[in-house]
Amino acid sequence: MTTETPLTPTTPHDGPTDGRRVRGDRSRRAVLDLAVQDASVRGLEALTLGSLAARLPVNKSGIAGLFGGKEGLQLAAVEHARGMFVEAVVEPARQAAPGLARLWSLVRHWTDYSRRRVFAGGCFFRTVEVEFDTRDGDVHDAVVTAHRDWTSYLRRHAELAVEAGELGDGTDVDQLAFEITAMLNAANDGSLLLGDDAVYDRALAAVRGALEAHGADPAALAAG
Amino acid sequence: MTTETPLTPTTPHDGPTDGRRVRGDRSRRAVLDLAVQDASVRGLEALTLGSLAARLPVNKSGIAGLFGGKEGLQLAAVEHARGMFVEAVVEPARQAAPGLARLWSLVRHWTDYSRRRVFAGGCFFRTVEVEFDTRDGDVHDAVVTAHRDWTSYLRRHAELAVEAGELGDGTDVDQLAFEITAMLNAANDGSLLLGDDAVYDRALAAVRGALEAHGADPAALAAG
Repeated sequence: MTTETPLTPTTPHDGPTDGRRVRGDRSRRAVLDLAVQDASVRGLEALTLGSLAARLPVNKSGIAGLFGGKEGLQLAAVEHARGMFVEAVVEPARQAAPGLARLWSLVRHWTDYSRRRVFAGGCFFRTVEVEFDTRDGDVHDAVVTAHRDWTSYLRRHAELAVEAGELGDGTDVDQLAFEITAMLNAANDGSLLLGDDAVYDRALAAVRGALEAHGADPAALAAG
Repeated sequence: MTTETPLTPTTPHDGPTDGRRVRGDRSRRAVLDLAVQDASVRGLEALTLGSLAARLPVNKSGIAGLFGGKEGLQLAAVEHARGMFVEAVVEPARQAAPGLARLWSLVRHWTDYSRRRVFAGGCFFRTVEVEFDTRDGDVHDAVVTAHRDWTSYLRRHAELAVEAGELGDGTDVDQLAFEITAMLNAANDGSLLLGDDAVYDRALAAVRGALEAHGADPAALAAG
């Protein structure tokens, strides 16, 4: 994780460039838009080709053909959700300078992303992390990779903040990344479970407190 | 939540006191011991009477009779898991004095409870909270009650710590309880997902830092 665009989703595979390809891409996207919403609520194992087909102009065997079966669909859903996450959280935060400003902007955009329910069931990755944490296989691995990429991205901007003198020299950036994701996840989970959005303000206050404890200028965290 | 025993599970309902009752209680306990382990891994919706019966000396209709169907089984599993949680976390922490010592002891016992996998899938309540957060009904309500009771219990001992001068007057005990549960849950989830128990030390360090930031004597937190 050394580039500035580590969380950009991979580009679609090459393939036919005719009308069939275009229609296939459109169908694929329609299936995935629905699948990630369903999975954010009930998990990836609860996805069925039949339930998706019933709500789309594509039948079960068409979906199976597009994704090569259920595991292929699950993997494509994780990738699609990554793209939506990048669009909602990572891209808008790129307007902030690398380091402390980026870190704080990521935190604010993450709370917005969870609060406005980009995914119906709150953060897609929270649901599938808990679902796949004790499983093996490619879907588990994709979920772990998404988790590590996000944590590493936060950690990277914490490091840049230390290098720029925006956070103190003694800052344990792994500890800080752990605490930030803990607070964000707790806000997402608490909002869903208790139906009370006050937890987002608690998470922002906690992260602000942690950053200030490491020497961050309060003025740099004012826009939260 | 005003008593010292708020998390004690409710006593079993009254019923026949003869041998049938004793056998029924024994069967009930055997089913629930297995059900909470399964549910901690795959959730309460994945429980089936058939799968439980296949591993126990009681058949499907026997289980249905004991619990009145699947929702009854799910509710009984939540109650049973509460009892195990009390035994693993709340009871041992009662050896510590109310206030800061109790609060810190609860945190340490919680990390032990998660780390030694009292439930095969880590904290039972983490799995079912994420599973039921967007559902309605009695099981959702039981899960929310368990969550609120635990948070309130932590909050209560934070309050007692403030009253005793062990934490500063300005301590926001709701915020503190939010941060403590956020760290504990993140450790549980991270340990399961990443297979690395270093997160428990991160959670303990984070909670210790939060308590010290509110004026806790570091010596009182030494045994962590």
